[in-house]
Amino acid sequence: MATIAANTSANAAETVRAHIRHGRHTTVTTGLAPGILQANLVILPADWADEFGAFCAANPKPCPLMAQSEAGDPTLPALGHDIDVRTDLPRYRIFHDGVQTSEETSISALWRDDLVAFALGCSYSFEAALLDAGVPIRHIEQGKKVCTYRTGIDTVPAGRLHGKMVVSMRNFTTPNAIRAIEITSRFPSVHGAPIHFGDPSAIGIVDIDKPEFGGEPDIRPGETPLFWACGVTPQSVIEAVKPPFCITHKAGHMLITDRLNEEFRAS
Amino acid sequence: MATIAANTSANAAETVRAHIRHGRHTTVTTGLAPGILQANLVILPADWADEFGAFCAANPKPCPLMAQSEAGDPTLPALGHDIDVRTDLPRYRIFHDGVQTSEETSISALWRDDLVAFALGCSYSFEAALLDAGVPIRHIEQGKKVCTYRTGIDTVPAGRLHGKMVVSMRNFTTPNAIRAIEITSRFPSVHGAPIHFGDPSAIGIVDIDKPEFGGEPDIRPGETPLFWACGVTPQSVIEAVKPPFCITHKAGHMLITDRLNEEFRAS
Repeated sequence: MATIAANTSANAAETVRAHIRHGRHTTVTTGLAPGILQANLVILPADWADEFGAFCAANPKPCPLMAQSEAGDPTLPALGHDIDVRTDLPRYRIFHDGVQTSEETSISALWRDDLVAFALGCSYSFEAALLDAGVPIRHIEQGKKVCTYRTGIDTVPAGRLHGKMVVSMRNFTTPNAIRAIEITSRFPSVHGAPIHFGDPSAIGIVDIDKPEFGGEPDIRPGETPLFWACGVTPQSVIEAVKPPFCITHKAGHMLITDRLNEEFRAS
Repeated sequence: MATIAANTSANAAETVRAHIRHGRHTTVTTGLAPGILQANLVILPADWADEFGAFCAANPKPCPLMAQSEAGDPTLPALGHDIDVRTDLPRYRIFHDGVQTSEETSISALWRDDLVAFALGCSYSFEAALLDAGVPIRHIEQGKKVCTYRTGIDTVPAGRLHGKMVVSMRNFTTPNAIRAIEITSRFPSVHGAPIHFGDPSAIGIVDIDKPEFGGEPDIRPGETPLFWACGVTPQSVIEAVKPPFCITHKAGHMLITDRLNEEFRAS
């Protein structure tokens, strides 16, 4: 995929998407189609859609809503001309009554006329901006997944939806922590500035060395952990609320759009 | 001065300046003419001016140069139509060979044809933006002066000029610390984002409870100190370098301009 990754045009995004659609790429999308917006995915039955839209509006930092489909329509034309959410992500999680029942590389066989797809902004966009500014990101340097944690912070409820916020963590020297806050605050629609830095217990993280996803973090003396609201939050909500049916992306296995990260930089 | 302080127009600035010029206000300018840019002042003989200009260019965070006069000309038309730097600040420090020899409320009697005035951005501008955003500033709430500290950080030398950076400190809860970094980063020409947060010893501050200026800080559990490059830095440079003659403002006793803080918000 190196050749594809070097090309930042929407054309490259389309090519990567086609690879994924045809099952030729089934792992994480980290680093694919640099400069291109990637998105988190949540699919719910129509009778949950209004509440989920309201939940996103009430929780814009973990759930920055980029696009929402019509019921039964698997396309998201606002994000890409040929997107089909049934096939265009490398890996999906299937939930029944809040419990993951399987993991799939396509959901075509599971699609229904009453399903509504939601695409949410993703931290890959601000990670690209950090790297462009020369702010190093340890887990990327080490080829690892980002560490994410379930916090004790309650999201703002909407209808039947409620649950704890999930955060992603990146650690920096103090000057780079300041730069990271500056830079990510320019991307309010892809999680924006961190919600916390420093003491993990202040947001209910008991052991920073034990993330829910990702390996053990490598935080060195003098470095500070920064915590960003994470687009995996809806998966924690689904587990708490137990709707009869739900499909999400698997963490790190994102929807690649035709949109540019730079479109989402605030003026 | 309450009536004057309530009016944010340049007209109000002119009125406040006239009060100061005629010796009716000789204390700090904190809170006067809200919304109006206030400035730090450095006056040096012409044979030091090029080096000081280069020093500001090399150290834009502590020394954001707003305007520079012609030699012998006490006006700064770029900052205000009637500014006279000889009379328009409430209090000046006079240095001979790097040592303060007196403090004055006017420098008309000391003015010379070879003197060049430099106006530098001041943290009052970003403090106003913080308060406007609902981020409380402890020393302002308590009616105290901001705490400033001499650090162990070397400024970037220029010609004969060198010395340690001076910083101002404000302490916040973590969410407000993040907001403060976000907001002040929008004001790059008035010191911008902080240069450090957290452990004071990392920037050479031995005892946070003993600032060089300002009283003992009130830092409460869970709060983090943030440190901004300060426009008092040139005074530490003057003491280190010992030019034969120099005049500065006294900390907190600033030049009130006709310009609006909002003009200096980065897009």
